[in-house]
Amino acid sequence: MTRRIGIHESVGELFPPERFERAFESDGTATGADERERTDGEKPIVETVGGDPEVLSALDVCVTLAYDESFLDGDLPWVHSVQAGVDRFPFAAFRERGVALTSSEGIHGDVVGETVLGYLLAFARGLHRYRDAQGESDWIDPDWSELGTLRGERVCVIGLGTLGQGVVRRADAFGMEVVGVKRTPTPVDGVKRVHTPANLEVAIEGSKFVVLCVPLTDETRGFETEPLPEESPLWEREEVIVTPHVAAAYRGYADRVAAIVRENLGRRERDESLANRVV
Amino acid sequence: MTRRIGIHESVGELFPPERFERAFESDGTATGADERERTDGEKPIVETVGGDPEVLSALDVCVTLAYDESFLDGDLPWVHSVQAGVDRFPFAAFRERGVALTSSEGIHGDVVGETVLGYLLAFARGLHRYRDAQGESDWIDPDWSELGTLRGERVCVIGLGTLGQGVVRRADAFGMEVVGVKRTPTPVDGVKRVHTPANLEVAIEGSKFVVLCVPLTDETRGFETEPLPEESPLWEREEVIVTPHVAAAYRGYADRVAAIVRENLGRRERDESLANRVV
Repeated sequence: MTRRIGIHESVGELFPPERFERAFESDGTATGADERERTDGEKPIVETVGGDPEVLSALDVCVTLAYDESFLDGDLPWVHSVQAGVDRFPFAAFRERGVALTSSEGIHGDVVGETVLGYLLAFARGLHRYRDAQGESDWIDPDWSELGTLRGERVCVIGLGTLGQGVVRRADAFGMEVVGVKRTPTPVDGVKRVHTPANLEVAIEGSKFVVLCVPLTDETRGFETEPLPEESPLWEREEVIVTPHVAAAYRGYADRVAAIVRENLGRRERDESLANRVV
Repeated sequence: MTRRIGIHESVGELFPPERFERAFESDGTATGADERERTDGEKPIVETVGGDPEVLSALDVCVTLAYDESFLDGDLPWVHSVQAGVDRFPFAAFRERGVALTSSEGIHGDVVGETVLGYLLAFARGLHRYRDAQGESDWIDPDWSELGTLRGERVCVIGLGTLGQGVVRRADAFGMEVVGVKRTPTPVDGVKRVHTPANLEVAIEGSKFVVLCVPLTDETRGFETEPLPEESPLWEREEVIVTPHVAAAYRGYADRVAAIVRENLGRRERDESLANRVV
């Protein structure tokens, strides 16, 4: 049977939906993954969709950024979130309607790890200040007493899932002393001491850097205002680096998401349980 | 005999000479090195000096940034450069006058390696653009097709001395494909292929990044204008990151330089050959 994949128009907030369409139409050899996936030969039907329940009902899966009530109005069997975070989906309603929900967890560790190390290096080596000075054509003379290294410094990584581990591996490779926080305090490669959230204060003591790699849940809510309001004083603080929600932004993003969905299409046809299933 | 160490006033171009004085007055346990040095107990006499040949003649060593003709006018036995580069010293004149010259080669690999990876990550992840946008309080929406990773990309490191190896180790840890260029093409850990300068074009073929880690000599001269002239078009090119000559700038710099000089003071007293000797 031909697979029918819908790309919800909300993904356009990230980049053109056509890029997702192309990723699903390819045979998966462009994912950059080490293992090539088995493909069944037949090209899937891929289309960008809105909130029409009739269109949705004909799909095998709707790949989306946003939650839309129409997902639960018809016979759509399965929704895939293009983000790792799924806080915007009403789990109970999905459960009640028998609609499966899967996430894009597990694919952003290297990209986010690189972004975070880029920020840590900017702070340690003062790189953001040189960029500011460049705007003034100013060959500045930095205060050397303010410039350090990552090597030898302690970083506390809060949350040791895919993203946290992507940060840990790179911080460890730079000779940092890595401590971490996770709910189940089992050992993690590259992390010297793993604490539970109850010991947060002990965990961050003596750390030069604290990296938050936690999902948005009721326990972690607090800093999530996006975009940062124009009147925020953070914009103008020279020692604060503000960026949009882009740590995972990457030209290969759609290909990686497509790899998860393609794997799950196969599992579904073989009546196996879905990878990254949330509901 | 009490050691007499002169700190030439030219080091003030980097940071206050007093910081060098303090580094030499300490017992060396603040260098951050793994091995602690043996100290002989007696405090050295450390003073900031100018071009007075009589003052210079009384010293065991003059620690300097710049070359000053007065170094060769009296009985100063030894000059130590606080930089790894020694291109500004007239080797033949030193040889003729029997004055030893040593460099600060070998101590900047981690600091420069971190700085360079910071730049590579800025380019790969577009971090400099977020800093530009921050100045406009602008929560920008990047073009994801322009954002990559270091992982999987090829970097060519030209020059595989201390600095080049500092870059190589970190690039390798990020999963980059590292190729390199050095005059003697012997294997280097973390470098997949080592080419000679004669094969420069082959070496850089297919590289996303090229990192120059070569000393300034007659063969490498060409880009050394400092500071970058105000009228240079490079300042305004958004895709170019301009920084002053600060890849090695670091709060522990003086301590590391002091460690080399302290080691060499001991060698000199024991009539051993000096480490990092250039002339």
